[in-house]
Amino acid sequence: MKPYDIIHQSSIKRLPQKTTATAFAPTNIALIKYWGKRDASLNLPMTDSLSLTLPHHGTQTTLTCIDAADDRVLLNDKPVATNTPFYLKLVDFINLFRHSTERFLINTYNNIPTSAGLASSASGFAALTLALNDIYAWQLERRMLSMFSRFGSGSACRSFWEGFVLWQKGSHPYGLDSYGVPLELNFPSVKMGFQLIQSTEKSISSRDAMNITTRTSPLYAAWSDTVTLHLRQMKEALINQDFERLGEVAEHNALAMHATMQAAWPSICYALPETWVQMAKVRDLRKTGLLIFFTQDAGPNLKFIFQEKDQEKVKAHFPEMIMT
Amino acid sequence: MKPYDIIHQSSIKRLPQKTTATAFAPTNIALIKYWGKRDASLNLPMTDSLSLTLPHHGTQTTLTCIDAADDRVLLNDKPVATNTPFYLKLVDFINLFRHSTERFLINTYNNIPTSAGLASSASGFAALTLALNDIYAWQLERRMLSMFSRFGSGSACRSFWEGFVLWQKGSHPYGLDSYGVPLELNFPSVKMGFQLIQSTEKSISSRDAMNITTRTSPLYAAWSDTVTLHLRQMKEALINQDFERLGEVAEHNALAMHATMQAAWPSICYALPETWVQMAKVRDLRKTGLLIFFTQDAGPNLKFIFQEKDQEKVKAHFPEMIMT
Repeated sequence: MKPYDIIHQSSIKRLPQKTTATAFAPTNIALIKYWGKRDASLNLPMTDSLSLTLPHHGTQTTLTCIDAADDRVLLNDKPVATNTPFYLKLVDFINLFRHSTERFLINTYNNIPTSAGLASSASGFAALTLALNDIYAWQLERRMLSMFSRFGSGSACRSFWEGFVLWQKGSHPYGLDSYGVPLELNFPSVKMGFQLIQSTEKSISSRDAMNITTRTSPLYAAWSDTVTLHLRQMKEALINQDFERLGEVAEHNALAMHATMQAAWPSICYALPETWVQMAKVRDLRKTGLLIFFTQDAGPNLKFIFQEKDQEKVKAHFPEMIMT
Repeated sequence: MKPYDIIHQSSIKRLPQKTTATAFAPTNIALIKYWGKRDASLNLPMTDSLSLTLPHHGTQTTLTCIDAADDRVLLNDKPVATNTPFYLKLVDFINLFRHSTERFLINTYNNIPTSAGLASSASGFAALTLALNDIYAWQLERRMLSMFSRFGSGSACRSFWEGFVLWQKGSHPYGLDSYGVPLELNFPSVKMGFQLIQSTEKSISSRDAMNITTRTSPLYAAWSDTVTLHLRQMKEALINQDFERLGEVAEHNALAMHATMQAAWPSICYALPETWVQMAKVRDLRKTGLLIFFTQDAGPNLKFIFQEKDQEKVKAHFPEMIMT
């Protein structure tokens, strides 16, 4: 069963019901990471994961029906060439849902740096899925859209809600129950910020890195149990509104994910020298009593996790930090 | 059962049979690492490990009977104070074997930097055990001495032979079968070198680091199977005299060991910025066709692994490298 077949069976295929549709989706940062797939073509994860949505950062996408032979893509007002991976990923995704020969102008605005390890693909595919739902007037519920968005980018399925979202890995063989579920709890004092670390090296894509890790890292055998443990600890921290525990578990989980990559062959390391320096700085600040933690995704940037009341102190230590 | 009881049962206790005895033991570098104990007081390892002896680097220890209330220790001709961990470790070890009130001057010479992560404690406790065997005239076979030396430092038990040595974890509850076994094979073209990386930070002892890793690293659950896999691959490489495979497996195993530490809480990282730089340099050199690999123990220094025929090339790239 492939994504195309799943969409086909859901009987949503029809001509666009309007000429244009716009949608916004926020990005999300995983506190308990998604790392490794049990099914690559369906983007089905090995484990659950849990994210915090960054409501002010994300992607706005406008679809407009055009009379043309091919889709056209604009990213932040700049045309994207048809032979780029970015263009092909978007068009491949739309091909899953396209009824016939309808073509679109896809106007995508990110207010976060693309490919900065800030999950712009998550918000991008979530916004595109929402815009498709609108232009085709599917009127599908969000969990269904979340499930569909997974075919573009796994972590997109967590970008349909604010707050804390669990991506349940599900048990259905085709992943029909593998989508985001918003957690019914609130922890508004939790804030995140990030500081861009310039990379001169082309780092490996998260897709390739996951693949190498799952195939070659002997420590990956312990990843699923690690996530189970950290998810339980994280849920307890959220229920108890225990910020320190939340930060510890998030940092521990991120370090463990990167450790599974370090033990891959060839070894994968997203950290740059400046990343290690910032990690040490975060730990040193904690020793002074400031509750600041980090998490790290498939890139060199750290995301800082702290409480709203400490925002000014954190900014003083990381003046170039961008608040989320 | 404690080390003292095991020695006591072996009926070797007697007065010194001569007034002085000298022994040398080489150090060894693990290609498949020892990381984690199943019994802390007996220094029994979770897994087998496999090392290469560096025959020219090690420790020479002379024991001389003295008429004094306490043992005296000289390290590289400098007196060691009686309240230092170094002194206490040596005296605690000798206390396991002491018959009565005999006291020793313990003269220890390391021709490797102490505490540089170059396993001077391995050669140190091996040399001390050999000197004790001589001064007490136990006439024990090497595997028995290897087993005893473990009570001082686990990896010492691999320092009683040249070449490749397997420390078999054993299955006896008191570890009577947990000692070194020399492998009956030769691979003389394998060379090692190291370059000291200056550390300003006091790094955590390997004993503490093991303890934190085994208690808190969720990835440690996969370590035992990792060693089983890497040992099988390493033995194949040795039998086939496949240097590239030997280097790959050694580097992979070291990275995996450090990954288990990175996933501990608090996270443990022995690498310093210069360590990462050297790792990248080794990988870059491999891309040019030079077969050079690294391994890393509980310190920031890398040990380079290469073939004798490439020694001059490696020295050209690492001019400060010390050959072993």
